[in-house]
Amino acid sequence: MPSVRTPDPNPGWLSEFELEETRGRVPILYVEAIPVRLDSLGQVEQVGLLLRGSATTGTMARSFVSGRVLHGEPIRTALMRNLEKDLGPTAFPQLPADIVPFTVAEYFPLPGVTPLHDARQHAVALAYVVAVTGECDPRQDALELSWLTPREALAHAVLDELEGGRGVLLQQAMAHVGALA
Amino acid sequence: MPSVRTPDPNPGWLSEFELEETRGRVPILYVEAIPVRLDSLGQVEQVGLLLRGSATTGTMARSFVSGRVLHGEPIRTALMRNLEKDLGPTAFPQLPADIVPFTVAEYFPLPGVTPLHDARQHAVALAYVVAVTGECDPRQDALELSWLTPREALAHAVLDELEGGRGVLLQQAMAHVGALA
Amino acid sequence: MPSVRTPDPNPGWLSEFELEETRGRVPILYVEAIPVRLDSLGQVEQVGLLLRGSATTGTMARSFVSGRVLHGEPIRTALMRNLEKDLGPTAFPQLPADIVPFTVAEYFPLPGVTPLHDARQHAVALAYVVAVTGECDPRQDALELSWLTPREALAHAVLDELEGGRGVLLQQAMAHVGALA
Amino acid sequence: MPSVRTPDPNPGWLSEFELEETRGRVPILYVEAIPVRLDSLGQVEQVGLLLRGSATTGTMARSFVSGRVLHGEPIRTALMRNLEKDLGPTAFPQLPADIVPFTVAEYFPLPGVTPLHDARQHAVALAYVVAVTGECDPRQDALELSWLTPREALAHAVLDELEGGRGVLLQQAMAHVGALA
Repeated sequence: MPSVRTPDPNPGWLSEFELEETRGRVPILYVEAIPVRLDSLGQVEQVGLLLRGSATTGTMARSFVSGRVLHGEPIRTALMRNLEKDLGPTAFPQLPADIVPFTVAEYFPLPGVTPLHDARQHAVALAYVVAVTGECDPRQDALELSWLTPREALAHAVLDELEGGRGVLLQQAMAHVGALA
Repeated sequence: MPSVRTPDPNPGWLSEFELEETRGRVPILYVEAIPVRLDSLGQVEQVGLLLRGSATTGTMARSFVSGRVLHGEPIRTALMRNLEKDLGPTAFPQLPADIVPFTVAEYFPLPGVTPLHDARQHAVALAYVVAVTGECDPRQDALELSWLTPREALAHAVLDELEGGRGVLLQQAMAHVGALA
Repeated sequence: MPSVRTPDPNPGWLSEFELEETRGRVPILYVEAIPVRLDSLGQVEQVGLLLRGSATTGTMARSFVSGRVLHGEPIRTALMRNLEKDLGPTAFPQLPADIVPFTVAEYFPLPGVTPLHDARQHAVALAYVVAVTGECDPRQDALELSWLTPREALAHAVLDELEGGRGVLLQQAMAHVGALA
Repeated sequence: MPSVRTPDPNPGWLSEFELEETRGRVPILYVEAIPVRLDSLGQVEQVGLLLRGSATTGTMARSFVSGRVLHGEPIRTALMRNLEKDLGPTAFPQLPADIVPFTVAEYFPLPGVTPLHDARQHAVALAYVVAVTGECDPRQDALELSWLTPREALAHAVLDELEGGRGVLLQQAMAHVGALA
């Protein structure tokens, strides 16, 4: 399609207009990752939650590592790219050997279809729990990363602060890793 | 965004041009289902494979139930719609209680990135094994549905007939349900 | 090993003494099933909870379908046998195509090691969500089967009535099938 | 039950007689682990197979990390103990955040019930793929650890050398992590 243009340094990236148009046509594929610290037996000791300015409300909100899968980009690459984007280059995420997500999260523009919503789009996110072993240094739009115990993370006050209804997703993740109680 | 237009009877459907354009921008989300017949203990007795004209090669090829997730469409609805489209209205598919796929299948336009490829697009498919209990009556472009035992379905000759490298996907499905041997 | 004895009509069953002795030696393998009713898209509409006399406390308690895997008995057979024992012969449980449990539940005799405990033994249970399509008619020691919506079943009062800490297991099951909210 | 005896330094271990007797009464719970080396994106680069003297045939056979879950022992502890027993103290296995196995392997004393058999007992094994990041130094009865690529490990000659029919289990593991092709 392109012709005499300089090769796109970021293939897969879209202009604002193209992204907006595409969001009106198809569900947009995302990956989401909940960073965790594990003890030597693999049990979750801490959950990492990002605090960032919400695009939708203009207020602060907690969130997970999250981003689009770009055109031509393998899921593992998308996961790693977004983990590095949100946690910095020294987080050393350990991607799991299998890419089956713990759940598939469906976000609809209209609130109420599912517990999850995203005013911008119909998004479908493959959701993972990812162990990180290094130092996290959030950058870009994330202001802060907080490490909470599973019990702290599951407190109603924290669940309610999660953007787009992701409190339910966090509960699903903690249930999956046996860290509910 | 829309205004005084008549409501679209098929929201989510795109024109050929829009679909083509969108395929160049983002990975397209699919659901795929491998229909099976189970015995009373839930063990796979038979696997249903569709025989259809391949869009890519113009020849006949075997395939699974497969289709796009439309804009605004929940995954379960997309699964059921595509099962009915390919197996007819009396197949009575029993969707599983959880929507975690047995694998996430990544198709790239360029052969060789993964074992799976799709000349038309970068597609990401949530892949399921779905029990059907009724009579299947393939319609539309599917010419025939064959029921094979897992052993028959895993024969090299059959695996090689599966479109787009889906032989690997069938092996993964049979491994998941313990029907490899 | 056996010789001229009459064939055992219930191979796998143990005398009280043998069971007691074995419980002191090895973890005892169980299967547990949470019966559910699904809508046409596979979503959980109702959860079946048994009300039965608790062996440990002498009081009434809610529980799941549960039972030992006998010596020589395949897991699927054990699941079906226990479903029929607790739900009657016309429940028509639909065992899933794969036998991967949604979680592995560990019960220890000492409370507090995990949220789950069983005063009689160290038990390890493979836990499943199983759709039932027929009429349930609990028999034996189960006095009653109640069908609750996921929301009702997740109420604190109900979770607390579940025997041996199984409230956590029910939350994990509902998280797995996306019925938390 | 015990009284004035010295505390058992290895609670959970049984005498030969007790183990033999117990094996005739109940299925014995095992954990099995297939050690793998992952690349930076989590993809399996190598699979570790143990070569050891087979208890059943007196010949050499390939196998996985494998061992009983002892009375009172959590599954994660059993997994780690057996990984250290078979791979040495510097293997640094990374146990996954969730303990859902990729499959539940059923071994029966009589060949043919399932593809898996164990002449000694009815065993039920929770099977895992476990990433190791350190140096492996097999000890005890394991003579050697070989690292093979998934392709090499899936060769018929290798699958056939796996003890007790575990070739099927290796195929299931590779299918689960998307390393079949």
